[in-house]
Amino acid sequence: MNAEFINPFVAALLNVMQTMAQTELKPGKPQKKADDKAGGDVSGLIGMVGENVQGSLSISFEKGLVLEIMHKMLGEKPDSINSEVNDMVGEITNMICGGAKNELDQKGISFGMATPMVVSGENHTIDHQVDGKKMIMPFSHESGKVYLEMCFNK
Amino acid sequence: MNAEFINPFVAALLNVMQTMAQTELKPGKPQKKADDKAGGDVSGLIGMVGENVQGSLSISFEKGLVLEIMHKMLGEKPDSINSEVNDMVGEITNMICGGAKNELDQKGISFGMATPMVVSGENHTIDHQVDGKKMIMPFSHESGKVYLEMCFNK
Repeated sequence: MNAEFINPFVAALLNVMQTMAQTELKPGKPQKKADDKAGGDVSGLIGMVGENVQGSLSISFEKGLVLEIMHKMLGEKPDSINSEVNDMVGEITNMICGGAKNELDQKGISFGMATPMVVSGENHTIDHQVDGKKMIMPFSHESGKVYLEMCFNK
Repeated sequence: MNAEFINPFVAALLNVMQTMAQTELKPGKPQKKADDKAGGDVSGLIGMVGENVQGSLSISFEKGLVLEIMHKMLGEKPDSINSEVNDMVGEITNMICGGAKNELDQKGISFGMATPMVVSGENHTIDHQVDGKKMIMPFSHESGKVYLEMCFNK
């Protein structure tokens, strides 16, 4: 997995957060080995299937940040992660993966997207089960962190 | 989503548990509406992508049951859900989805499987984000419960 592959996902995340939630995230350092697991409070997950490649993507939000995004996007700020927050995280996950997919399609890298799943629960961790390389990248905001994690078996 | 679609997944789950872990599960009643969310301690999740269909599958284990399965399959029984347990849950998820895929292939229903993800964290919940019908089915064992949940957008 190289920068050509990773960058469209990073760009899509930053773009979705800017345009949909007026939220500027500060990208941290990508890590190839996922010793440092995402420990968010709510995560969007999506599977990807191409002709010769399979993979998975997760976007894991800390509570403070996801509630701030909810406020920016929908004008309401619930006290806790409820089903509306879950739905928003599912939408965001779809938009980020779809944005990256469009850019990669133009480079001849094609895959289909599964339907997203959203996991809630304080400090849950996500283990991407793949033999290939995993990439985890933290992004910071004053309200909290978000972790983009992805892997492909090629 | 009809029985023709669901049964291969149920059969694969029961079969994998019987043959790999000598564990007989008692099937509960399938629910079409997922008001009753899976609240397991460790879950395997996988995305599925066909030409005209997308979906997602989760298998959520309570801690007591997954540690018992670990003992049966690998001869060791850790005190808590560790990375070996996660790997086993990923394998089981792959086997169940793969078994169902083979059976459905023969009926002319084809899809590709993404790589599995494993989520750990006590009492986490999983929200499958799809407009189509969702199916959740509990299975019981003296050590604990497991919830099979799946949905497709068709």
